[in-house]
Amino acid sequence: MKKLTYGMVGGGPESFIGDAHRKAINIDAMATLTAGCFSRTLEKCRITGEQLGVDPQRCYASYEEMAKAEAARPDGIDFVVVVTPNVSHYPVCKAFLEAGIHVSCDKPLCLEVEQAEELARLAKEKGLLFMVTYTYMGHVTAKHIRDYIAAGKLGKIRTVMAEYPQGWLAYEGEWGGKQGAWRCDPKQSGGVNCLGDLGTHVENAVATLTGLKIKRVLAKMDVVVPGRVLDDNDVVMVEYEGGATGVYWTSQFAIGHDNDLRVRIYGENGSILWSQENCEKVTMIQRDGTIIERHRGNGGIEPGAAAYGRLPSGHTEGWLESMGNLYRSFSRCITAKKDGSFTEDMIDYPTVEAGAEGVKFVHACLRSNKEGNIWVDM
Amino acid sequence: MKKLTYGMVGGGPESFIGDAHRKAINIDAMATLTAGCFSRTLEKCRITGEQLGVDPQRCYASYEEMAKAEAARPDGIDFVVVVTPNVSHYPVCKAFLEAGIHVSCDKPLCLEVEQAEELARLAKEKGLLFMVTYTYMGHVTAKHIRDYIAAGKLGKIRTVMAEYPQGWLAYEGEWGGKQGAWRCDPKQSGGVNCLGDLGTHVENAVATLTGLKIKRVLAKMDVVVPGRVLDDNDVVMVEYEGGATGVYWTSQFAIGHDNDLRVRIYGENGSILWSQENCEKVTMIQRDGTIIERHRGNGGIEPGAAAYGRLPSGHTEGWLESMGNLYRSFSRCITAKKDGSFTEDMIDYPTVEAGAEGVKFVHACLRSNKEGNIWVDM
Amino acid sequence: MKKLTYGMVGGGPESFIGDAHRKAINIDAMATLTAGCFSRTLEKCRITGEQLGVDPQRCYASYEEMAKAEAARPDGIDFVVVVTPNVSHYPVCKAFLEAGIHVSCDKPLCLEVEQAEELARLAKEKGLLFMVTYTYMGHVTAKHIRDYIAAGKLGKIRTVMAEYPQGWLAYEGEWGGKQGAWRCDPKQSGGVNCLGDLGTHVENAVATLTGLKIKRVLAKMDVVVPGRVLDDNDVVMVEYEGGATGVYWTSQFAIGHDNDLRVRIYGENGSILWSQENCEKVTMIQRDGTIIERHRGNGGIEPGAAAYGRLPSGHTEGWLESMGNLYRSFSRCITAKKDGSFTEDMIDYPTVEAGAEGVKFVHACLRSNKEGNIWVDM
Amino acid sequence: MKKLTYGMVGGGPESFIGDAHRKAINIDAMATLTAGCFSRTLEKCRITGEQLGVDPQRCYASYEEMAKAEAARPDGIDFVVVVTPNVSHYPVCKAFLEAGIHVSCDKPLCLEVEQAEELARLAKEKGLLFMVTYTYMGHVTAKHIRDYIAAGKLGKIRTVMAEYPQGWLAYEGEWGGKQGAWRCDPKQSGGVNCLGDLGTHVENAVATLTGLKIKRVLAKMDVVVPGRVLDDNDVVMVEYEGGATGVYWTSQFAIGHDNDLRVRIYGENGSILWSQENCEKVTMIQRDGTIIERHRGNGGIEPGAAAYGRLPSGHTEGWLESMGNLYRSFSRCITAKKDGSFTEDMIDYPTVEAGAEGVKFVHACLRSNKEGNIWVDM
Repeated sequence: MKKLTYGMVGGGPESFIGDAHRKAINIDAMATLTAGCFSRTLEKCRITGEQLGVDPQRCYASYEEMAKAEAARPDGIDFVVVVTPNVSHYPVCKAFLEAGIHVSCDKPLCLEVEQAEELARLAKEKGLLFMVTYTYMGHVTAKHIRDYIAAGKLGKIRTVMAEYPQGWLAYEGEWGGKQGAWRCDPKQSGGVNCLGDLGTHVENAVATLTGLKIKRVLAKMDVVVPGRVLDDNDVVMVEYEGGATGVYWTSQFAIGHDNDLRVRIYGENGSILWSQENCEKVTMIQRDGTIIERHRGNGGIEPGAAAYGRLPSGHTEGWLESMGNLYRSFSRCITAKKDGSFTEDMIDYPTVEAGAEGVKFVHACLRSNKEGNIWVDM
Repeated sequence: MKKLTYGMVGGGPESFIGDAHRKAINIDAMATLTAGCFSRTLEKCRITGEQLGVDPQRCYASYEEMAKAEAARPDGIDFVVVVTPNVSHYPVCKAFLEAGIHVSCDKPLCLEVEQAEELARLAKEKGLLFMVTYTYMGHVTAKHIRDYIAAGKLGKIRTVMAEYPQGWLAYEGEWGGKQGAWRCDPKQSGGVNCLGDLGTHVENAVATLTGLKIKRVLAKMDVVVPGRVLDDNDVVMVEYEGGATGVYWTSQFAIGHDNDLRVRIYGENGSILWSQENCEKVTMIQRDGTIIERHRGNGGIEPGAAAYGRLPSGHTEGWLESMGNLYRSFSRCITAKKDGSFTEDMIDYPTVEAGAEGVKFVHACLRSNKEGNIWVDM
Repeated sequence: MKKLTYGMVGGGPESFIGDAHRKAINIDAMATLTAGCFSRTLEKCRITGEQLGVDPQRCYASYEEMAKAEAARPDGIDFVVVVTPNVSHYPVCKAFLEAGIHVSCDKPLCLEVEQAEELARLAKEKGLLFMVTYTYMGHVTAKHIRDYIAAGKLGKIRTVMAEYPQGWLAYEGEWGGKQGAWRCDPKQSGGVNCLGDLGTHVENAVATLTGLKIKRVLAKMDVVVPGRVLDDNDVVMVEYEGGATGVYWTSQFAIGHDNDLRVRIYGENGSILWSQENCEKVTMIQRDGTIIERHRGNGGIEPGAAAYGRLPSGHTEGWLESMGNLYRSFSRCITAKKDGSFTEDMIDYPTVEAGAEGVKFVHACLRSNKEGNIWVDM
Repeated sequence: MKKLTYGMVGGGPESFIGDAHRKAINIDAMATLTAGCFSRTLEKCRITGEQLGVDPQRCYASYEEMAKAEAARPDGIDFVVVVTPNVSHYPVCKAFLEAGIHVSCDKPLCLEVEQAEELARLAKEKGLLFMVTYTYMGHVTAKHIRDYIAAGKLGKIRTVMAEYPQGWLAYEGEWGGKQGAWRCDPKQSGGVNCLGDLGTHVENAVATLTGLKIKRVLAKMDVVVPGRVLDDNDVVMVEYEGGATGVYWTSQFAIGHDNDLRVRIYGENGSILWSQENCEKVTMIQRDGTIIERHRGNGGIEPGAAAYGRLPSGHTEGWLESMGNLYRSFSRCITAKKDGSFTEDMIDYPTVEAGAEGVKFVHACLRSNKEGNIWVDM
């Protein structure tokens, strides 16, 4: 497979997520960074570009310029990675879609439901691929659970308990640094903090693993740490189509939790417990109560999921590998687009439609919370 | 300390809980079983009595008779243990209180709030001791957490996540046996199943460990397993006086969970994680994120709690020892009552007032659920 | 079953183990303490006796007197529990055997191989029952493993890794108290410390769980903590009859380990991992690598083992319950002896022969260590 | 920092380790693969080269040719990665050293002590850098432990328990595939299997983490799985200079263990427990028994170690990141060599001297085992 080329918007010196996307893409060497608009000034952008080996001519002062220029080049980038703060996801993605360039955008997709729907519509009209990087669903064990449940092995799902507590924003002004500052700032994060940052991961994880569709939500979004103006602890009761129920909890002041996304799924034929911090294993309880622990790389992992493993069991894979798995499928699809072999069933990454579900989920929760914790339809 | 004597109502051949109370009392040999109304017929009662070494003359056909007869004897029982099905807790306890006998009653205390309040009032008027056996709060580690928090070491509590999933009633008619049958039968359990059986433990555990008072609840009580008529999966959002929040989850079809009461407490100065299935240890996270695991029997356990340990650390204590700890305090209080040295601060067991809180909690949840998952004041 | 009576030698005010035996016997109320020689003076003995409800006439100044007197009474004790320091196990046990009284002796059985063999011979000649209380083999999960392996489900055993680290004697004179003092004193413990205290448990656990017979050992016994004269860290390589191998490690300065007896058994058809501090579960790996966790009380536990459970799964049982299980079998056997229904296959507790194996093991290790860590036949 | 270039010997289509090295180098994009001798025929080599984007002119039929040709080019490779089977490590490494090219060689370094010493001498004479890729010591938590102990925080080390069990070679001919085949073949692996493959990792891990030097060993190397001719289960007793002791266990038939390298270090001021399968955390027990769990990315990790982290705590890093950390230091050193800024204290990777220790360890064990499990000096 010929190596692709990509550009990046965002990902300057202090960006954690831009660097992480680059490293994840590097692992399997599927694409080369050849263009970027890493910072808000051309000078800064070029400094980053030079460090990353990007031609200064392809370091751009604005994303609009970049989209146009790259679209015009015969050797223009195959796709763009959008890792700007949440508020600018929408205009940046839109610009590249309009320029005819495939998009990978970090989550959450954008702030407004209408924006999300427009991006989805644009991608469809233009025949472009659009990935939203819900990192955790790239793990082999996550894919295993998805395939196991899709094959009916858990039976009808009865209830789902999902949570994503963190503790790094437990004190205003003490912890969090630049990463924390923009998340807690209404202007940069768009009126929602914890639920947008963590809740969308929970929503996507449950939707991906179980295939369940949310019918309605009842949300309680609290602002707890003194000095905050946006939510930092959220609980959402969920009813799914078909009758199953769920509870989602997210927090940023749960000291002792690093990045503790966990999903527990209870079906009529057994249960599944999964934790992203222990993503190399999955606990599967059978109908008779037998508790089985399966490790990535062992037999018993669903074959399609197992194929994403790079190393034997016990040779741990982590976050970058999980993100890399999203890019493996995304790259294969783009290559297939280029050589005309693409079909929809090749897509094994979170799409713009999945991103739009996240935006709808946040808005339904905001409304439920505002109106006194009532049920709101998705 | 002179050994006390006690009687039991309930606890016949198929009773799990009656046998468990007897074994728990036995460990420390603080009281001798000398009277009983173990079954509904005198014949059956005497068979059990004989096995347990109880004088046939003190095996009774009815609890009313037993209460009167024992009260009249100069060597009558010091206290009674009530381990009948939930529906009869109220009349049995009332009869013994009226007869002037101290009462230990299994949880939940009773079905109606008015009954609970009457029992509390009666006990107070008569100067009688009344314990409600919320077993899990007898664990050394539970007492440690309570004392640690009461000493202010966790700071202001921000949120509490508590849960008690079980999996033994995942299938109608397959699992559960006699124990399951009466719990799922509205006539015997009084219109509530899972929340009464497990939810009251959660309510009591959080109240005991944190000292928080519930202000209002929003409950969703679901009937999930086909064939059931009572709740078997419940989620309760809680607001406490002072602003902290909580979520309680109980389930009886969560396959893979045996008896999985867990409480996680997040304060401004750290967090505490406790699981009754791993009751020999407690995880305490400090303000700076340092994760500390403390074991029963090690230094660092609060002294009042540590004093309840019988064995060195690593020599595991369990459920019976925890129940036994409740009886250790109860017995000491009764002995002190007898010799005139009793003071209120000697009480280190769950009281009838704690039991009444559980009944109020269940009723507030029932109302919230009935009215569409709205907030209901306690 | 009629309640038995027993006497105790040792178990005075500062004895941990005597109190533990009494509590363990209490749980199931199978025997009543009716005689004792708890301390070295009659006065002290009677104080303890009074606290325990023992008739002062049956509190004895010496074990010799007690053995004779009790043997002479028509209502003499059914069995004696020997919980003195290790050095006096032999004479005490011998006295009671000679008096015709069944014996339960704490481990290690005694100091010399000849003593052990004499006690075994005496018991046999007299037709008396003799239990050595290797507590940990009373756990339901331990019995499960034994029966599972005996049924051939693990296939031929290949290697065994067993260990028993503790940390309570990491500093001379700081930790340990009276319990530590006598263990580290050559006069009281008989020339061996850690290997006698912990190593015999390991030896018995492996022998019990696997059925393997030790052929020869190569031992390294180190004296590490400054100020010690006896071993506090021991490693033993083991070869079993039939070709399997093993390694045993015991330590008393392994800070962070409370009482961490663990056995890992690797067979040709799978593996078994067991830890006494987590004695409510067992990990069983199948031939194809499937990792299964089984809990006491769940289905899948071998029936004979499961029958020892008192509480449902998740209602934790611990050390006292495990010790209690030894006494349940011992009591049943004594009762059967009394009513003439006893047969050898009723024995489900560690016998004097098992105790003698422990003494032989210690002596073989001592010789191996003394001669430069060479192989020594058992 | 300017990107370096490297070549690879070995790493053809079925090589796990070659692909792993490439991916690990990719993550941080510190070096580009520009030459290779991936297979034994030029044709196969070029196919791999094409897939990896290597100029066909720099795909070589033999390593000798490659060493000479690359040394002669002005744009020749900065370093070579040697990932051939163990038997050819020595000649390949030697050829590149003689050609004046820095070397990264997979472990074990080579088969004979003389070879190892020659390579070390050659590297020194030529002023070349030589890394032996003991992957696991690249983990942040491993570096943390090393620095923590080096700073004296654990006090004098008393004993070390280290193990590396795997289960993938539990059955001859069933599991293992090509990877297993060459390891068990005396011709390809050089007369030792399990101890060379796993034991050298254990030796290096303990040496790196603790700084202890082995004085003598007593080894038992067993051939257990029917059909094997080389060791598949090894136990080594170790005495270090200064008096500390250790036990190393390695196995390839321990079903249920994937890749379970664990090191437990017991010092006079506390203990440290580390497991590479859970490499994101480390357990540190203090002198008073307080058990602390520290996570990579949290405060409390030694600063020099923490600097290797790429992602926040809870965003898991694994095997490739660990290997990548070795290459980060190696690349920095090579760059410094090129610009003249290199000093010895910049080396933070396992050197050829560390590799030579592994070879000596294996030979001492082989001799001990052959002579009946006697003590052999290193």
